[in-house]
Amino acid sequence: MSPEEFREQGKQIIDWIADYYETVEQYPVLSQVKPGSIKNQLPLVPPEKSESIGQIMNDVNSIIMPGITHWQSPNFYAFFPSNSSGPSVLGDLLSSGLGVQGMLWATSPACTELETRVMDWLADMLQLPEKFRSTATGGGVIQDTASSAALTAVLAARERKTGYQTNENGCSGNLVAYVSSQTHSSVEKAVKIAGIGKNNMRLVDVDENLAMRSDLLESTIQNDIKKGLIPFFVCGTVGSTSTNAIDPLPEIGEICRKYNLWLHIDAAMSGTAAICPEYRFILNGVELADSFSFNPHKWMFTNFDCNCFFVADRSVLIKTLSILPEYLKNQATESGAVFDYRDWHIQLGRRFRSLKLWFVIRHYGTEGLRYHIGEHIRLAQEFANRVRQSDDFELVTPAPLNLICFTHKKGNDFSKKLLETINQSGKMYFTHTVIRGKYVMRMCIGQTHTVEQHVIQAWETIKNTAKNLI
Amino acid sequence: MSPEEFREQGKQIIDWIADYYETVEQYPVLSQVKPGSIKNQLPLVPPEKSESIGQIMNDVNSIIMPGITHWQSPNFYAFFPSNSSGPSVLGDLLSSGLGVQGMLWATSPACTELETRVMDWLADMLQLPEKFRSTATGGGVIQDTASSAALTAVLAARERKTGYQTNENGCSGNLVAYVSSQTHSSVEKAVKIAGIGKNNMRLVDVDENLAMRSDLLESTIQNDIKKGLIPFFVCGTVGSTSTNAIDPLPEIGEICRKYNLWLHIDAAMSGTAAICPEYRFILNGVELADSFSFNPHKWMFTNFDCNCFFVADRSVLIKTLSILPEYLKNQATESGAVFDYRDWHIQLGRRFRSLKLWFVIRHYGTEGLRYHIGEHIRLAQEFANRVRQSDDFELVTPAPLNLICFTHKKGNDFSKKLLETINQSGKMYFTHTVIRGKYVMRMCIGQTHTVEQHVIQAWETIKNTAKNLI
Repeated sequence: MSPEEFREQGKQIIDWIADYYETVEQYPVLSQVKPGSIKNQLPLVPPEKSESIGQIMNDVNSIIMPGITHWQSPNFYAFFPSNSSGPSVLGDLLSSGLGVQGMLWATSPACTELETRVMDWLADMLQLPEKFRSTATGGGVIQDTASSAALTAVLAARERKTGYQTNENGCSGNLVAYVSSQTHSSVEKAVKIAGIGKNNMRLVDVDENLAMRSDLLESTIQNDIKKGLIPFFVCGTVGSTSTNAIDPLPEIGEICRKYNLWLHIDAAMSGTAAICPEYRFILNGVELADSFSFNPHKWMFTNFDCNCFFVADRSVLIKTLSILPEYLKNQATESGAVFDYRDWHIQLGRRFRSLKLWFVIRHYGTEGLRYHIGEHIRLAQEFANRVRQSDDFELVTPAPLNLICFTHKKGNDFSKKLLETINQSGKMYFTHTVIRGKYVMRMCIGQTHTVEQHVIQAWETIKNTAKNLI
Repeated sequence: MSPEEFREQGKQIIDWIADYYETVEQYPVLSQVKPGSIKNQLPLVPPEKSESIGQIMNDVNSIIMPGITHWQSPNFYAFFPSNSSGPSVLGDLLSSGLGVQGMLWATSPACTELETRVMDWLADMLQLPEKFRSTATGGGVIQDTASSAALTAVLAARERKTGYQTNENGCSGNLVAYVSSQTHSSVEKAVKIAGIGKNNMRLVDVDENLAMRSDLLESTIQNDIKKGLIPFFVCGTVGSTSTNAIDPLPEIGEICRKYNLWLHIDAAMSGTAAICPEYRFILNGVELADSFSFNPHKWMFTNFDCNCFFVADRSVLIKTLSILPEYLKNQATESGAVFDYRDWHIQLGRRFRSLKLWFVIRHYGTEGLRYHIGEHIRLAQEFANRVRQSDDFELVTPAPLNLICFTHKKGNDFSKKLLETINQSGKMYFTHTVIRGKYVMRMCIGQTHTVEQHVIQAWETIKNTAKNLI
């Protein structure tokens, strides 16, 4: 493709995206297609001859778009958001255009050094303790997802506890990890991947707010020690996926200190709230953690993928994951003066992801970010009030931030039917969880363009659909 | 950011990228900055107030660009390429703009179904056996890197061998993996991550062409079985990173069948050559494999990240990696009629990466892809001939495809000095390896815009710099 054609087609796609953002509310939020219907419209074999970008874009419009669930619609309230923004898309475009691969400092020093600085900015914005900064013993690195971050934390914990001998000799079957029954499934996946085994992961029970009970954590640890097992890892959650529960990090952290366990904090969505001083309390106790991660690709206007993983002692991470074959050796690495981020995660190759984060933080400013996050929480709290004041609905859990969990008083079957009916209408998209046998609807407010009118409209849709169903 | 501002700034960045491609040869290929020099120009704290995209782009030009190593320069011959192209950048831009997260079929059916179809196209282009297609027992999935693909393969192999009990109970310390001394370091990393332990990974010796010796593979396996150990995994390589060596897959595959071991084939860069009928022979034996991966983000004009991982029996993969918490349950998944690709890799969240691959394959057509790959190999073979005909240089290994390994006859110190001098000149960038104590220069020809004149110029630069150094 010539630079001229790239200019022309690129500008058309920029316009296409801008048009999409202007019209996104016209699409059904949840795609209404049937399994196989997209695939069946695509040729069985690849084209032999070149086709034009215009032809491809025609197929995007006619074949792909009906199969899109619109995560960037302001009426998307499902799961956790994966919100994006103009500056993020532009920063990501620049990253695609530059096409650098930052596995080593030398393979693009700017890719490493911008990341280091931007991660220190985030540590500043979240008021993380000094130890998590590159200027101290730790530092941050961009990973793809909170799943990979959790795996990385489990591995570092495993190696620190076994004196880096598991890497050499394999797992010995006596390490034990601790999570709550509400911890994200990615930690179970990480424990399996790392060869620890699900049966060596304890599901500590939760309190009435669905937060981990630290008393049960400690007694479980003591019980395992008595059996001759070796506790090594705890995951504390700030804002569980199911209900936004917040584990008592200060108590958990003290227990981890006492028994020398690695404390990882998963704040995938809710961590972003800590950039607002009035919500910084959710991270109280992070000073006792060994690692911490949150996803700007969920609630900080940065398009997927962008997980930020912070570690208090980077030397443990690097000793756990470093491998240096001859063909990657270079003077900068040997000098010890640089970070080679490929030693900070599973993958070797890495994209220039700090660009989009840099664009987002500078475009919004910390002031702008705080404003928009604060607004989402305010709108969610207003929604919670509407539920509280309603005769037909009730809140199921506390709603500390931007996730509201509620049911219809007519019970599980009705709530399920209500949710499915609304999602099939295409007007909005929200999802469910199950809490102590209750089918619970979840409204998570965090899409970039969701404003008051959308949330009011969502509540009306829910109320009216329920009335019609009765 | 308003749609109007997005249009205006987006078009300027499109122009910026087109300008960059037109002028990329004017930059030193390897960044010449000193450690810390980029970071030190960036503010220590994030901006409180919003800044304009214009301000950010000024800093891109003045601060970031000197710290870029230009992977998209036609004079980039280092490591393996990470080549990109206009259609790929545009497809990736569309993916960023749509901002969908395809963890489940339901969260954007088009994201899953386009991927399934495009992966089947690639199976077609590479003439992979039927079993690797979605229409049979297997299928392909896009992963980020060959490292993650190798880890996924190790995990599936581990679980198949242990009846899915390692996921439950942890590693038992008696599983053994087999690679050659030339296998990519990512497999060692995967073996460590999976709790197998490096000491349970055998480095099988190689023949004079640096390919795995299948006789030694078998005797090593037999020896381990005698010791009561459990062989479970072999990685065969098509185009090793160091020298592009090709392991004898048919023999290795027969051994894997005989002893019931999982055979994973890592063809990260070189797999792309198999789309040319005259080079398809490099994959002979793939019919005996359980999994296969290659990276369109290396040599198939698709910007990072895009690894294509194929598995012969998807049920093993899914049983190994599937986790289904309540909040991810949905009708489509329960119907069994759809793929949920989050069960095919480590991460939960996933980007719409098949778009860029679809753009690339349709823009080039299979004909165009074969032409450009064939040209790279032709240019590399011409370079190899120049080395053969030279009095001062010599080839160190066979050069089956697009990687040429050579030394200067004045020995290791001279070759090293030569390479470093040229890289510091900024005229081109190539890297080294060490083979049997020899310091070896590597020229890998695969950048999208590298044509004959660049390779001739590279050879002149190498020859003339050597003369000047003597």
